[in-house]
Amino acid sequence: MNAQLLDNAKSDRVRRLADLTRAKGRRKAGRFLIEGPQSVREAVRYRADAVSDIYVASDGQAGASDVLERIIQEALQADNVYVHRATREVMDHISTDAQGILAVGELDAMRAVQTRLALTQGSRIAAFWQVRDPGNAGTVIRAADAAGCDAVVFVDDCVDMFNPKVIRSTAGSLFHLPVLTVGTDEFFAMMGERGLGVWAADVYGTETRKPESLPDVLARLRANPTSDGNSYAMLFGNEARGLSADVLAQCQRIISIPLYGKAESLNLATSAAILLMSLTMASSVAS
Amino acid sequence: MNAQLLDNAKSDRVRRLADLTRAKGRRKAGRFLIEGPQSVREAVRYRADAVSDIYVASDGQAGASDVLERIIQEALQADNVYVHRATREVMDHISTDAQGILAVGELDAMRAVQTRLALTQGSRIAAFWQVRDPGNAGTVIRAADAAGCDAVVFVDDCVDMFNPKVIRSTAGSLFHLPVLTVGTDEFFAMMGERGLGVWAADVYGTETRKPESLPDVLARLRANPTSDGNSYAMLFGNEARGLSADVLAQCQRIISIPLYGKAESLNLATSAAILLMSLTMASSVAS
Repeated sequence: MNAQLLDNAKSDRVRRLADLTRAKGRRKAGRFLIEGPQSVREAVRYRADAVSDIYVASDGQAGASDVLERIIQEALQADNVYVHRATREVMDHISTDAQGILAVGELDAMRAVQTRLALTQGSRIAAFWQVRDPGNAGTVIRAADAAGCDAVVFVDDCVDMFNPKVIRSTAGSLFHLPVLTVGTDEFFAMMGERGLGVWAADVYGTETRKPESLPDVLARLRANPTSDGNSYAMLFGNEARGLSADVLAQCQRIISIPLYGKAESLNLATSAAILLMSLTMASSVAS
Repeated sequence: MNAQLLDNAKSDRVRRLADLTRAKGRRKAGRFLIEGPQSVREAVRYRADAVSDIYVASDGQAGASDVLERIIQEALQADNVYVHRATREVMDHISTDAQGILAVGELDAMRAVQTRLALTQGSRIAAFWQVRDPGNAGTVIRAADAAGCDAVVFVDDCVDMFNPKVIRSTAGSLFHLPVLTVGTDEFFAMMGERGLGVWAADVYGTETRKPESLPDVLARLRANPTSDGNSYAMLFGNEARGLSADVLAQCQRIISIPLYGKAESLNLATSAAILLMSLTMASSVAS
């Protein structure tokens, strides 16, 4: 715990921290910002190795709220985490989404675990091709976590997962499971090496392949618990354009979610939640 | 089609239209605003009876884009819809989310169909108690539509469904199925009269009742297609506080979505999509 109260909103240190909200600042510093009690708590609990500093709002002599104090106590268990007190003004200068607490994470430490994926035996992968919207990217990481996926893979040109809005939208899930970024060819090669079939979420399919309907896929999973129901990479396309024909052609299966009413489509986050969770529920009931 | 080009962004008419983006303006005028090609197209296609005017951006002599022209042609089939051309400046003054096209809807016409619900035989209801966020409210209406629900009921103090952000988030679904607003007592009375069991989505349950896990509920639905799997009112709670103990006590069943990973919760829109779609898939496979 650093006893000195940070009260100069115009200091270099505060400016450098605020820079972490931008991609360029993160690249330059090799660090990223974690905002708000939920994200900081999950970062401290699951990836304290990747957290270097915590900044907590402190008004005069009064301590932080109980919620924040509990997070700080947990953080202080880790030798590598430094806790600093800062004025509200300083906190606001760094981020308007802090809700009283911020942490600084180390990109190298996060990435070290992320590349270990290639070596692990995890067998349920959620993959997203060219996901661009930070809110969507965060929400799908959270959905993949809830559905018990072993990892998330961002394929090709996706939004930076260390964008503060992505992190906020994951509600802590960024620290619960590895999230990798790889190119398209690398993705298919990696899944091939691990013997995981790539299943595409797609409404239209290709000229020669109609999509399988999700309820049929689930029925087969339940009927045959020894099938590949517990190991797959489920791949979702870009928010607006879906998956390219070229990518679809490389997928083992194409699965579509049926639309029962008059809605013409579901958005990416909704599709991912329904598909990932249904697949897990179907194979968990079977096993 | 009105031949006159609206080009005075400071006219009373433009000011009154812009007022429809606010609750007070809608109440005063008895009308609401429908923004963007997708929403306007679905309004024209499914609820032309409730649409009075369409405003389309027109720059000089050039017509609107093909997409907009097709919507206009469809709108002109309805005797009651007037189409007006307006300058970009006028359109921007009314709404920055128009994407070239706006429609004005009549609250009375929308509500007339909405209250007919009590008389119809629809049997899959999606209900939301105290939903407050406009984006959430729109997304859950869209999910209920996709899952084939016969109606959506907003229970107690919810966001105004004619808020422009709600309408945009429904992606047209507001015009696909009836969406009602009722009080809590009225809701339970209405469902009781129609013989529909109210099922609560809730993680914790009450002191005396543990929630049933969704996969178990789905397995029973599939095993017994003659059960009540095709008729229910599925009730979701407020984004932050869930359902009150008082409301939970009045529900026939309490259902929770299992979390397989380390995620602590799912947000409202995600929970609703998973639950509504799984229930429909399970009972549709069975039937």
